[in-house]
Order: sequence, then C-alpha cells, then structure tokens
Amino acid sequence: MQNIMCKGFRAAGVTAGLKKDGKKDLGLIFSEVPASVAGVFTRNRVQAAPVLLDRERVKSGKCQAVIVNSGNANCCTGEQGMTDAVAMTRCAASALEIGEALVCVASTGVIGQPMPVEKVERAVPGLAEQLRPEGISDLAEAILTTDLVSKIVTVQGELGGKSFTVTGVAKGSGMIRPDMATMLCFVCTDLEASPEILKKTLSAATDRSFNRISVDGDTSTNDTVLLMANGLSGAKLETAAHQALFQKILDDMLLQLAKMIVRDGEGVTKMVEILVRGAVTDADALAIADTVGHSPLVKTALFGEDANWGRIIAAAGRAGVPLEPEKTDILFDDVMMCENGMTCGDAAEAEATKVMKTPEFTITVDLKMGTGTASVITCDFSVEYVKINADYRS
Amino acid sequence: MQNIMCKGFRAAGVTAGLKKDGKKDLGLIFSEVPASVAGVFTRNRVQAAPVLLDRERVKSGKCQAVIVNSGNANCCTGEQGMTDAVAMTRCAASALEIGEALVCVASTGVIGQPMPVEKVERAVPGLAEQLRPEGISDLAEAILTTDLVSKIVTVQGELGGKSFTVTGVAKGSGMIRPDMATMLCFVCTDLEASPEILKKTLSAATDRSFNRISVDGDTSTNDTVLLMANGLSGAKLETAAHQALFQKILDDMLLQLAKMIVRDGEGVTKMVEILVRGAVTDADALAIADTVGHSPLVKTALFGEDANWGRIIAAAGRAGVPLEPEKTDILFDDVMMCENGMTCGDAAEAEATKVMKTPEFTITVDLKMGTGTASVITCDFSVEYVKINADYRS
Repeated sequence: MQNIMCKGFRAAGVTAGLKKDGKKDLGLIFSEVPASVAGVFTRNRVQAAPVLLDRERVKSGKCQAVIVNSGNANCCTGEQGMTDAVAMTRCAASALEIGEALVCVASTGVIGQPMPVEKVERAVPGLAEQLRPEGISDLAEAILTTDLVSKIVTVQGELGGKSFTVTGVAKGSGMIRPDMATMLCFVCTDLEASPEILKKTLSAATDRSFNRISVDGDTSTNDTVLLMANGLSGAKLETAAHQALFQKILDDMLLQLAKMIVRDGEGVTKMVEILVRGAVTDADALAIADTVGHSPLVKTALFGEDANWGRIIAAAGRAGVPLEPEKTDILFDDVMMCENGMTCGDAAEAEATKVMKTPEFTITVDLKMGTGTASVITCDFSVEYVKINADYRS
Repeated sequence: MQNIMCKGFRAAGVTAGLKKDGKKDLGLIFSEVPASVAGVFTRNRVQAAPVLLDRERVKSGKCQAVIVNSGNANCCTGEQGMTDAVAMTRCAASALEIGEALVCVASTGVIGQPMPVEKVERAVPGLAEQLRPEGISDLAEAILTTDLVSKIVTVQGELGGKSFTVTGVAKGSGMIRPDMATMLCFVCTDLEASPEILKKTLSAATDRSFNRISVDGDTSTNDTVLLMANGLSGAKLETAAHQALFQKILDDMLLQLAKMIVRDGEGVTKMVEILVRGAVTDADALAIADTVGHSPLVKTALFGEDANWGRIIAAAGRAGVPLEPEKTDILFDDVMMCENGMTCGDAAEAEATKVMKTPEFTITVDLKMGTGTASVITCDFSVEYVKINADYRS
C-alpha cells in the first residue's frame, strides 16, 4: 500500500544544491486540477516567510501545487525572505502554467540564512518535468533534513461505490533534533470536499497526532500541514457519516506519520505513551501528560530504563492542575508501580523495569478524581540528543 | 567572611547512616532563644511530609530549631511519612529541651522510600551535643546530596550602631541533577524582625534568586527556604530604610547562593544569564526569559558553544507573549548577533562565538516594544547531565 499517489496528483524531488551534501532538497506536488485546500501552521510568534505566505494563500480555499525545499528555513530573513518565498511560488507557477496564487510553499533547514533563491529558480523547470505519480518517493526524500527515513502513508477506501485514495507524506524528527525539526506534512486525496470540511477535519486530526508529539516544546518556526482534495475520484464527502469516515482515516494517518517521526529520531531508544486518566477535565489530563512528557528528568530516566515513578509524580505535581498525590496510581504498561501515591515495592519495580527495557510502552498516571483523559507520545532523552544538538551547526 | 555564624545560633552535622556512602547526612540548627521565622516552599502539588509540616509550624511565626536530613526525601510516603516527620522534630525537641512545635524539619533525597526514622532518632542526641557556631560547616555538608561543594554566605552590617550578621546556607544542584535537586536554604540572622517582615522580605528575595534559576522546570517536591531572626544582636528592623537594607542583603545573599548552586552542577560548563528587555510588561519578559532558559535546544547550543541565535528567537517566539521578530535584537554580552530579526553576519558570529567560549556570559533579547525586563540564570545541557540522570538510581 505504500507510495501510491491518489488520482490526478503528481510529485517530484531533485537536488537544487541547497543542502551541502548533494542530497535531494527541492520537491514539488502538483494536482491536475485546482484542489480544495486547508492548512495548519506553527503557533510560534516567529514565523518563516513561507508560513506567512501560505496562511494568506489557503484563505482562498484553492491550491494546485506546493513547492518545498530543505536546507534553508527562509526564517528571520526579513523582507527579502518574503520576496524569495513569493519568487519560489512564481517560478513553480510559471513552469506549471498555473496562477501564482494557486501555489503554496514550505521550507525547512537553518534559520537566519538568506534563501539562495536562484538555485531554486534554476532547478524548477527540471523539477516540473520530473512530475509523476510515483514521484512522491522523491519528494519524501527531498524534504528530509536530519531524518533518516522517508515517511509516506497511503490509505484507500470506498464511498458510494467509488474508490478513493489518501496519500500523506511527512518529515521531522520532532523531539530529537528539533532545530531542523520543522514538521512538514502534505496530504493529498482525490476525494471531493469543501475547504471548510478539510479545515475542520485537519485541525482535529492534527490535535490528535502532531500536537501530541511536540513534546520538547521547541515549536518550529516553519511547521506546516497542508491537506489538498482534488475530487478526481468522483467520491464526495456529503453526509456526516462520510465525514466521520474521513476523519478516522486522517486521524489514523497523521498519528501513524507522527509515530514514524518519533521513531526516526537518532538517539531515540524508546517511544513511550504518557496516558493520564481520572483527571477532573481532559484539559487537566493534557496539562499533566504534557508536563510529564516534557520533563528532562522523566526522559533521561526512560533512557536509563529506570522505573523512577518519583520523577513522574513530581512532574505531574507541577503541571498546575488539581492532583491528589495520595490517590494517584502510576503504571508501566499493566504493572502497578505506585498505588495511592506510594511505592508498590521491590517486586513491582522488578516487573516495571522489564517493561522499561522494551522499545515501546505506556506509562499511565491515574488520578482517580474524575473522567478527564489525555495522552502524549514522547521519547527518551539520550546522550546522542545532546551530542547531535550541540554539534549541529558546526 | 565565610562560615561566621550569627549570634546565638549554633549548628551541627553528623552521619546517621541515611546515605549509602557514609557521608554526613543529618544536620541541626538551633537558636538559643525562639526566633521569628518565615518560610517559602515548593509550589509542586506533590509535597513531601516535612514541607507540609513546616507550612503549618511557621504559621506561629516562631521557630527555635531545624532538623534536616539528606539521603531520603520523605515524599510519597503516605501517612507514615508525616508520622516520621513529626517524630524527627520530636526527638530534636527532646534533645534540645524545647517545645516540639518550635522545631521545623527538611528532607532531601530519593522519593518514595520509607524514612528510616530510627536511624535519625539514634543519631540526634550525639548531633545535639555537637552544636556549636562553627558547626554551620558540618551542617552545610550534611545537607548535600549530589552537590560537590558546601554553600555558605555570611554578611555583616550595622544598624543604629549595632552590628549584626546574616548567615545563609544552601544545597541543590538545581538544573543539573534535579531529581536530588531539592533546593534547601536556611538563613539565620541575629537581627530583630517580625515574622511578617521576614515573610515579605524572603518572598521577594526568593523570587529574585532561586525562582530565577529553577530553569529545568522540574520543581522539587521538597524545596524549602527558612529565614530565622533571633534578635540577639540588638539591631532591630524598624524603619523602611532598615527593611530596604535587609532586603538588599537578602537579595544579594540568595542570588549568590543560587549562582553557587548553578556553578556546582556536575556537567555544567556555562552559567548564562538570559536577559530580556523591551518587552511590553515585566511578566512578558519573564515568560520569554523562562522559555529561552528552559529550551533544550538553547541549552545544548550553549554546551556546543554555538552562537545559534535562531534557536533563541524561535524559543522566544513560542513563549506565548507579544514579540515582533522584525524588531528583535539578540546580543551575546555586547556583541550584536541578530538585529531586527536578522543575522549580523559572519564577523559578528565569530565575535559571538568567542563570548560563548567563556564560562559566564549574558544573552540579551531586546524586543524594543516596551520597558518590560526580566532575567533568569541558566546553564548548559551537557552529555554529563543525561548520563548522571539516566544512571542516578542504579
């Protein structure tokens, strides 16, 4: 099922010379007809020029192409940055013979360096010539920075007797090397749907996936998720049931891509779900899951395979929401390690330590106060993380 | 000036067998007469038994002794924990022949292990016999956990022709090994002052010192700062000018102790002030200083001696307060590296890199929007940090 492109979409990826290592660094997605579009962007107050431009362009609800580069974030580049972002869309539009306003743009890489836009302009005609359905693999490669593997997910379904395809591609090594860690995700589908429905579905799916893994807090200036629907399958999102089906597909796809991002981080040895239940509200549960998932102490303990529940309850306690330590349980998978705020003893710790030695597990914090639930996906904080991030620019 | 104890105070520190390595782990501070007292405690919702007990006891405004142990935090220890905390104060009171309610208690060490209170009870009579003014050095040693050096600051002054002394002792390796990093601080003075004045002065001084260095966010369950004033110097805090003098002394002392804590962390190679100015409000400035000071990306860049201003502005941008990137300047000491949101070029970067190679410097983020100012003291995030915290309990 991998690498299947939905009807009417083509993609390509080439080397434009933006990356020092000569790897692919410029990609293009193109739909034969203008598609409905929705976007979700970084909440950082510092936003790269391509983000600012896309925010405006998706307001029309229409998009036919996306040009995307790695190797330079085009962020903190002043007015010239916006000029360059516009120039990127202009040369793509010209090569594709479509309106400039129908082109979105995304960039990922180092902040604060001028964008060598002439390299992009030189490469675009060749890039456009390479467009083909299978080109999604090249695009997936061209948007990688320090990621090790391409991330593509394809889902096919049927609606009113018509089969449709949804194809998602992403990059990012989120919590691992977040300086380069702009999270980019492009989802194409041949379903027919209004921009409003796309927006609603995309926002919800993003909250349930990418927003649950941004656990080192260093929100990128360039994060961009775009969803395009060109309708060429003939399948149409008409009823509430259709929309629910699409929501489910998109939720699953983005969560799958998000987990691929976590797993791909160099230095990551564990992928851990922090599940909080029994909170007064879902928002309270999320605050605790988030604080525990961010805690350097918890993350280093994950790396050390140490079932250190004291660090977990201490992190939960500083989340700023109601919590009664004397009621709180903490489980590693199904091993109860802390019951009513106290240790379950050495035998439980031995069992919990076995769980910690596996590559994927769940830590449950049960507050036993209400019905609020939330979870985040986190990873361990390794010696490699520090080395990579200390050495990155040099 | 170091290690001078103020009039009427004595201290001691001995080995009670709570630490595995046989080092000093039990301390006592005693005032010949009941002293006015004020306390500042952790804001974590999970609070150790000694913290809960002290909160109640300082309400009377009077305290004559503090018993403190390292090696066990007496946290998440249930009702037994409170029983044990009370027992610690009881045996100290009995050895000192004072009322139990006049004794406070503090603990630091591992969370979730029962307190071996019988070891404390066995050691207390010998501990009380050792009490002497110079004993402050032994106490400073007995409260260390993974700290490497004792932290004592003494200041002498004159008020209305009478000389007085303020002696502060602290432990904690704050952002470095924060699992053990309960921050404890005991300040004694022979000034005469009401509990109300002590409370006000201590709260303000704590906000300007310890609350500015808690930058890894893992607030301990046991953080305790106690200020005791026994009046035996005859110098009295009467006028607003006196109080201002004392505030200045306490601010300076706690900031000095806070910096000693940062410098003491193993794995720390840099102590860096993050100074934010030009924010709309002081609170906004603090939010940004805090976010930048917490950022794993910024902290690993400090370790890597990388003048990576892109990470700084990106962290500032996600603080959730107004910021205009196109106005923002970033300086490393007096080297402007980013002006109006854009790089100052390679020559500036070479100069900034020189600053990064020094052990202590200031990073200034100037928003040029208003007059709000704040600063936090942070440190780098090193490979050692991860190793220490991954291996700590094993």
